[in-house]
Amino acid sequence: MNNYSDKGISRAIIKRLPRYYRYLGELIDQGVEHISSSNLAHLMGVTASQIRQDLNNFGGFGQQGYGYNVKNLYDEIGKILHIDRVHKIVVVGAGNLGHALGGYQNFVNRGFDIVAFFDKDPEKIGTEIAGKPVYPMEDLVDFINSNQIEIVALTIPKEGARIVADMIKETYVKGILNFAHTDLNVPKRITVENVHISDYIMRLCYTMHS
Amino acid sequence: MNNYSDKGISRAIIKRLPRYYRYLGELIDQGVEHISSSNLAHLMGVTASQIRQDLNNFGGFGQQGYGYNVKNLYDEIGKILHIDRVHKIVVVGAGNLGHALGGYQNFVNRGFDIVAFFDKDPEKIGTEIAGKPVYPMEDLVDFINSNQIEIVALTIPKEGARIVADMIKETYVKGILNFAHTDLNVPKRITVENVHISDYIMRLCYTMHS
Repeated sequence: MNNYSDKGISRAIIKRLPRYYRYLGELIDQGVEHISSSNLAHLMGVTASQIRQDLNNFGGFGQQGYGYNVKNLYDEIGKILHIDRVHKIVVVGAGNLGHALGGYQNFVNRGFDIVAFFDKDPEKIGTEIAGKPVYPMEDLVDFINSNQIEIVALTIPKEGARIVADMIKETYVKGILNFAHTDLNVPKRITVENVHISDYIMRLCYTMHS
Repeated sequence: MNNYSDKGISRAIIKRLPRYYRYLGELIDQGVEHISSSNLAHLMGVTASQIRQDLNNFGGFGQQGYGYNVKNLYDEIGKILHIDRVHKIVVVGAGNLGHALGGYQNFVNRGFDIVAFFDKDPEKIGTEIAGKPVYPMEDLVDFINSNQIEIVALTIPKEGARIVADMIKETYVKGILNFAHTDLNVPKRITVENVHISDYIMRLCYTMHS
């Protein structure tokens, strides 16, 4: 359970935290140790008061005349997002999108580790993606339970995604990152985050024209 | 300019339209001609009153005792989203994610057509992805302007994405679908829709634990 979850932090703020985390990570890479709310605001294209309001929810890490300690703030947001420890992921679908996920750098640093891929294609089974094995679908449920896999990423078409969602609903899995062009029907204890790429394109198209 | 844009349709409703569009498209594929708001609600896991409220914004296409005409509603939402005509897209980045986009079916039916890919890798230039050519980066700006490309999808790392965003800011392009792990600095007339996959994973992780 999260320390912050019962403090009434709004969903809107939580949605913004990954963006803060990303900017702070870049500042760390650049060797920046402290930053004022106004400089951070300028960088992120938001107002300083928005930043102060958001970050005050977590105890106000800023100090007058000194700004935020970048590393502390980064770590603190990491804790809030629960990415201060590594979560094991398997990717179902060893196609282009699966390969793309496998190629993401810094995943382990950010609290995520893709440990295996699964596919039904005999030609893919036994190969490796980014150094990680591709196993057959039949082994998925056992693998999840014996390796305490918390997250499954689904990079397969919708019909397969529904079948896999059904297969894993009684396993150790707590979250699904769903790239399939469909919504999934799973028990409430499993969280689904949808990445419906065609929905984003449609929204882009609407916004472009309005 | 959009007929609906000055009618005060909320951003929240617009965000939901692609999902309606997706469900209605599936119903059409299944040969369903009419559907009641309560059946559509059940299918989509929302309330019938939500559906009626949302769709009444667009003139109330439902008829008492008859329900919605699926095809009409689908076409009407398509018009609202401006996907009743085809938008030309180029994909910058012929890597795994670029290939994944190229492999999306039904894109043209949904108002989008990927016409070319661009990459800086000499080994990729001259090849094809899903039957479409891969051109060198130097040709990007000319290609956009001579082919009236409205949307650029960026499937390259963040450093490259920033450079390309700068290159195309004076072109015909109206929208960017940005998969790079960074925000882009472009003139207001260009709309950016970000697909920051690691942000989604972080949000999933937070929600899983709360």
